[in-house]
Amino acid sequence: MSMTVLNKQSAAPLYLQLKQVLESQMVDGILAPHHRIGSERELSERYGLSRMTVRRALAELVQEGRLYTSVGKGTFVAEPKISQSLQALTSFSEDMRARGMTPTARLLRREIIPAPDVVAQHLRVEEGSDVACLERLRLADGEPMALETAYLLFEGMEQLLTLDLGGSLYALLREQFDLIPAHAVQELEARIARPRERVLLKLNEGAPVLAQQRTTSNAERRPFEYVQSIYRGDRYRFVVQLVKQGDT
Amino acid sequence: MSMTVLNKQSAAPLYLQLKQVLESQMVDGILAPHHRIGSERELSERYGLSRMTVRRALAELVQEGRLYTSVGKGTFVAEPKISQSLQALTSFSEDMRARGMTPTARLLRREIIPAPDVVAQHLRVEEGSDVACLERLRLADGEPMALETAYLLFEGMEQLLTLDLGGSLYALLREQFDLIPAHAVQELEARIARPRERVLLKLNEGAPVLAQQRTTSNAERRPFEYVQSIYRGDRYRFVVQLVKQGDT
Repeated sequence: MSMTVLNKQSAAPLYLQLKQVLESQMVDGILAPHHRIGSERELSERYGLSRMTVRRALAELVQEGRLYTSVGKGTFVAEPKISQSLQALTSFSEDMRARGMTPTARLLRREIIPAPDVVAQHLRVEEGSDVACLERLRLADGEPMALETAYLLFEGMEQLLTLDLGGSLYALLREQFDLIPAHAVQELEARIARPRERVLLKLNEGAPVLAQQRTTSNAERRPFEYVQSIYRGDRYRFVVQLVKQGDT
Repeated sequence: MSMTVLNKQSAAPLYLQLKQVLESQMVDGILAPHHRIGSERELSERYGLSRMTVRRALAELVQEGRLYTSVGKGTFVAEPKISQSLQALTSFSEDMRARGMTPTARLLRREIIPAPDVVAQHLRVEEGSDVACLERLRLADGEPMALETAYLLFEGMEQLLTLDLGGSLYALLREQFDLIPAHAVQELEARIARPRERVLLKLNEGAPVLAQQRTTSNAERRPFEYVQSIYRGDRYRFVVQLVKQGDT
């Protein structure tokens, strides 16, 4: 690709044009992940822009997770966001392995608890009924990616308190309990990370997260799992494919 | 429902318990939208909690869009978030009307422009090819909900510059151009609203938004639309239903 020249006559603001140039270079692989990009001064000279304009473009790219800064070292190209299908009933472990990353989990909590109101509603039991609660921090190649709180309800759930939960929960449910996820309803929201989430996921104050809620049922439509997952906004995007049914 | 008593022996922090009580009351309709909830002082007396605890619960509920404050008037119950299916190929207008809300649009920009890189990639044309660009602020009952920038490419797209775009774009495309959306790929991310988005959507600094990108194709899989939409994080949630195909 030849060096793109910014168009100072265009209606598009110069900082946006610079963002687009840098983004294209990332897409084209000219700027690879963890590649150091030039300093503000270098970029302002290369593109004939004010440092203010360069600063604004870089700040937005950092905020969007396309670049990251390392104090005293400079600004670098971030890993691309993980595109996760919202339509695959796969587990975090399976997803990460399919991407060539090593999934691990840090177990933060596991106990039998009385179901809080919202959990009871989704699992269709009385408030206060026993459910198994598993809270796990999910990591990929050692980097924290998501915080998952699962509430499970099925015959033999007490065994979850002693079984090894380092790997795929769905694989375990399938193999040990013959539980197969068949249907799920997922909700997705954007919000600001709460203090505890921030610490666990290594996020800055005010960082956005994708909060997902999923209710999973077996083939008989009996819900056995309600999960609240918090995904890092700077590392995740969700993908959905649609096909129009019928003829209108 | 009888008055829920908070459990000071529970492992669950008191502010979280108070949040759950208030959320249940909203779900049960005891606290209806735009109902004024008690002041910090009133709630701290009613539940026997410190004002700090009450403040934290209320602050999180405000941040999550469950409550809103009106300066000098108090704290009120927010409208529930709009649950939008990510699997329906419907337009904003159709969605809002199905909810009994009146959709309107404020046209911010419409012109034929040379396709920027990312747009050209999604519409599968050369960078710089002519595309129609429509930017619209979408409102429901007069309240700004989403900012939509659509890039369209089809025979006769120039007519978009003069046609009435106040209603459903999909209805217009269907009726005037025989264009029917048949497939789409959507991506969803969480990020912080940019300054211009904040002004148009009436959001505070640092407010989270759901940024959606959609590429829509006709039955022959020819992409005719690439849309970037910014949804208010405090007013929207997206829903996806999944059904496992096959037997594993």
